[in-house]
Amino acid sequence: MTLRHSSLVNGSFEHAVSVFDRGFFYGDGVFRTMQVRNGLPVNWPFHYQKLVADCAAIGIVCPSAELLIHDLSILFPIHELDEQTAWVAKIIVTRGEGARGYAPPAVTVPTRVLIKSPMPVYAKMHYTEGVRIHVCETTLARQPKLAGIKHLNRLENVLARMEWRDESIFDGLLLDDQGNVIECTMSNLFARFGQQLITPDLTQCGVAGITRQHILGLGKLLGLEVRVGQVALDKLLQADEVLICNSLFGVFQVTGMADIVWDRQALASKIRKLITHD
Amino acid sequence: MTLRHSSLVNGSFEHAVSVFDRGFFYGDGVFRTMQVRNGLPVNWPFHYQKLVADCAAIGIVCPSAELLIHDLSILFPIHELDEQTAWVAKIIVTRGEGARGYAPPAVTVPTRVLIKSPMPVYAKMHYTEGVRIHVCETTLARQPKLAGIKHLNRLENVLARMEWRDESIFDGLLLDDQGNVIECTMSNLFARFGQQLITPDLTQCGVAGITRQHILGLGKLLGLEVRVGQVALDKLLQADEVLICNSLFGVFQVTGMADIVWDRQALASKIRKLITHD
Repeated sequence: MTLRHSSLVNGSFEHAVSVFDRGFFYGDGVFRTMQVRNGLPVNWPFHYQKLVADCAAIGIVCPSAELLIHDLSILFPIHELDEQTAWVAKIIVTRGEGARGYAPPAVTVPTRVLIKSPMPVYAKMHYTEGVRIHVCETTLARQPKLAGIKHLNRLENVLARMEWRDESIFDGLLLDDQGNVIECTMSNLFARFGQQLITPDLTQCGVAGITRQHILGLGKLLGLEVRVGQVALDKLLQADEVLICNSLFGVFQVTGMADIVWDRQALASKIRKLITHD
Repeated sequence: MTLRHSSLVNGSFEHAVSVFDRGFFYGDGVFRTMQVRNGLPVNWPFHYQKLVADCAAIGIVCPSAELLIHDLSILFPIHELDEQTAWVAKIIVTRGEGARGYAPPAVTVPTRVLIKSPMPVYAKMHYTEGVRIHVCETTLARQPKLAGIKHLNRLENVLARMEWRDESIFDGLLLDDQGNVIECTMSNLFARFGQQLITPDLTQCGVAGITRQHILGLGKLLGLEVRVGQVALDKLLQADEVLICNSLFGVFQVTGMADIVWDRQALASKIRKLITHD
């Protein structure tokens, strides 16, 4: 795989976008990250639905599913892949090119970018022993107009991720400015209190991922009440189990956070079996 | 001027950046916008000082002044320009390229982009009669780690600017989520109450522009106490005069905002004479 063949811009083999693209000027766009197995983007309908919703939330007309699937078929040709190989597809959709100035042009043509990356290799220990997370000093600002959207304004995540270099730390916990737990830098979070599995409310900040959405529908199968709620940091420390999730690793249990240790339990692997095709 | 010659990327005539640039992925960078007159960037020392400070605030090593001045000399050759022609230079500095993921690579090489655009033509009426502004429904989120910095995460400004299309409206007033006046989408704001000229505090949100900084130092020359303070929207309505400023137009008086009308006064043109070289 050469760099030249690892990305498409508007359907062509390119690895560059215009400096006048509003995605570059202002982070004026959205993105998705998904697994591709055997040439097929895992959970595509949910990813596309979320991409359309995120585009709509900031007034971008999302490219059609047909166009994006065509792009995927070019960059992930089935005949080149074997069933053992997983890739990551990142789709970026921006408002398109514009002149200097915040006002979008009267007519904009969205830019679509597809990037192919190797699937991260997760340590076996993360599955068997769980993961450790860092409590970030960087907090998330409350912006209801952008909350939940996976947009390209991600400096908060970058600054939070720069807080640690210890490779034994898997992700960083993000709070809002009032001490409520929101998510981690690259994952959503669930906390179990007895029979209740709660994921933080994301109407003020955070990114509402599709794996979180998936898990929110699993209540009956898990024998738990799974719901959205407020989780202060103090409350999180009292949780029976803490889980994090995203589209690449699925679900991991959090077993360490600062001085706190949680016993290894079965929920993470149970959910992982329900939501993945492994 | 062709598109090909209107931008430099890392000192070369290019109009594209890598799709792997963190500026494109995450808005992980900062920018400046300035006038260029007769080949010279106006107020360059202040712009460069601010660029260095903004880079440092998010952990980017700013390219040297020598490099940036070299870029400017290529895109704005003195012999091609006459004294009547003004251009706009936009300098973007990002953290550079990276793989997928929020963690920056161990070694990053910042990307620098220089873009040449025509100077906007401001209506003569803006100088003689002042300008009208819209009160934006979009509010600014409070994020002390990013406040004041002219970074590339500008979706709030984009959404705010999309609120109006009426060409008689020059800019949009941005409040924080507590109803404090912060700035306009592309300018900073000052409000005069008697002998006090107050500009909003920008420690929680907003962009601290160099023209605002310049005006903050003019107190003695204006015979006013010029200072930073809190300005609630209710309080703004009681102001004797409201001014907005940026590096391109200098200073305009705001004479209309929703149903409010302010009488034309002399302060804007007085300050404009002090800070511009016209």
